[in-house]
Amino acid sequence: MLLKKYYDASVSPLMGELEGAVTIMSPATVANVVCGFDVLGFAINNPNDELTLSISNKVGVEIINEDDFNLPTKAEDNVCGAALLALLGETPEIKGFTLISKKHIKPGSGIGSSAASAAGAVFAANELLNKRFTKQDLVRFAMNGEKVASGVKHADNIAPAIYGGVTLIRSIHPIDIIKVNAPELHVTVVHPQIEVRTADARQILKQNVLLKDAIKQWGNIAGLVAGFIHHDYDLIGRSLEDVIIEPVRSILIPGFDEVKTKCKEAGALGGGISGSGPSIFMLSRNAATASIVENVMKEVYNKIGVDFQTHVTTINQEGCKVVNSEK
Amino acid sequence: MLLKKYYDASVSPLMGELEGAVTIMSPATVANVVCGFDVLGFAINNPNDELTLSISNKVGVEIINEDDFNLPTKAEDNVCGAALLALLGETPEIKGFTLISKKHIKPGSGIGSSAASAAGAVFAANELLNKRFTKQDLVRFAMNGEKVASGVKHADNIAPAIYGGVTLIRSIHPIDIIKVNAPELHVTVVHPQIEVRTADARQILKQNVLLKDAIKQWGNIAGLVAGFIHHDYDLIGRSLEDVIIEPVRSILIPGFDEVKTKCKEAGALGGGISGSGPSIFMLSRNAATASIVENVMKEVYNKIGVDFQTHVTTINQEGCKVVNSEK
Repeated sequence: MLLKKYYDASVSPLMGELEGAVTIMSPATVANVVCGFDVLGFAINNPNDELTLSISNKVGVEIINEDDFNLPTKAEDNVCGAALLALLGETPEIKGFTLISKKHIKPGSGIGSSAASAAGAVFAANELLNKRFTKQDLVRFAMNGEKVASGVKHADNIAPAIYGGVTLIRSIHPIDIIKVNAPELHVTVVHPQIEVRTADARQILKQNVLLKDAIKQWGNIAGLVAGFIHHDYDLIGRSLEDVIIEPVRSILIPGFDEVKTKCKEAGALGGGISGSGPSIFMLSRNAATASIVENVMKEVYNKIGVDFQTHVTTINQEGCKVVNSEK
Repeated sequence: MLLKKYYDASVSPLMGELEGAVTIMSPATVANVVCGFDVLGFAINNPNDELTLSISNKVGVEIINEDDFNLPTKAEDNVCGAALLALLGETPEIKGFTLISKKHIKPGSGIGSSAASAAGAVFAANELLNKRFTKQDLVRFAMNGEKVASGVKHADNIAPAIYGGVTLIRSIHPIDIIKVNAPELHVTVVHPQIEVRTADARQILKQNVLLKDAIKQWGNIAGLVAGFIHHDYDLIGRSLEDVIIEPVRSILIPGFDEVKTKCKEAGALGGGISGSGPSIFMLSRNAATASIVENVMKEVYNKIGVDFQTHVTTINQEGCKVVNSEK
């Protein structure tokens, strides 16, 4: 099988048990979650990336892409590579890794494609290293991958990919991640096939905001977190309001206002831009509504003639997980 | 007894059951709760105001002050009066009220003195009116009292005084108040006897804030709410950080930095300015720590030679309550 093809059996005898290969799945994630810009994210059950990692006796990270995205294979320029190099900096007894990447989450879609790669790579490495690192360490390593992808070390996709569920990134200096209990939630995502670069989406934001808008925003994030933990769907819905980021960024996404308005009319609790776009996500109480919401999204993009892809899924509570291990 | 002295038995026969008098207690409250500027507040068990209200057949609100604070007695200029006039606007069958006010919460202390009056007055009226109004209505009426006191209709002291416990004011247009479950918390308050007018404290705030500071603040408020509901004391402590309001307002309070630093060293989870000051509050896990924290506060203000008053108490879960009813 594929996994065997690249598995290098000649690892140094010094490594003891540190050998074998592991295949993991890493989930797509929704970051920024409306009023939770830069601090809130959640993992979803579909789509996922798949990657296989083995310990290598060559120095550095060898990257083999088994998909059509033509991502860089030089470790320093690759999100998985950069994350693994950071981890290698704290595992002196390991020379390197070989990574086979099979991405299903389209780069640039706004549902955490780079985070799925970076988080998945270090999660897999930690499995091979008998879980010596904490989840917090893994977030720290994986953020180096985000830096390669967008120029900024942010954790709002990385954290939910590693922890699963809804995660609050209260701080990244120092890293402080809180898993927020949430009720069953159904997620509908539409990815209009246009390009919004994270770096561009960051650049159009103003550095200053009105205090009165900031107050509204922190009332909403507090309401959203309380709504999640109290399992209060109405409160979740009322709190899904963004008066700072969305008014600026949504102009980059054709059809945004129409999608949002019509999805809420169709029963969605609310939603907004996923990450820095162009994907739009909506949360619903149940699968039937999530499916109706998908149809609304399809109608809007069919009408305005923009190609798109949709996902109807649920919140992933587990984060990255091992699907095959040959240790 | 006092209550009888002002109770007017000659109420209109049209009012049916709407007669009698009620005496209530209304709690002091801590608003702004560090990172929760304008959106978070909690009630405390000590001090409390006491007031007695009866339905009158004279038009308007007659105010009798039985304390030494020399507060205005003209209804429009009195926080209780303004709140009751708003309520009277929606109770056409009632001509007026007679209010006897016995305040123990010093006006200008920063622990919701005006809110205790306004909330208490409309709470008492609602008891006389057989609870026809919702708590949300009472908040709406009572905010008219806050407008008299500080020029601004805010609800972050009113809401906890009426609802009890820790309350999130997600929005005031429309009013959306969420009671946030919180663990047992001990509260120490020091009131240095200097004057900080709410209007002045508002005026020194900048209208614009840095987006990066706002993000830090909403990460903290989200952490604080999650910490309360998950009963995670460490998270509560880590989240009690204010990068926007406190750096500006604390300069109006002598000894602030020293009090804060030393109280945390003594075991307090954290704390900050109560309302717009000058009171400072600290939260602790247990009564013993809250008492040690009180000593720290006393030492600081004795040293710098500012008169002060302290309160060691707990979070009040009930809000306003009836202590005597003669209906």
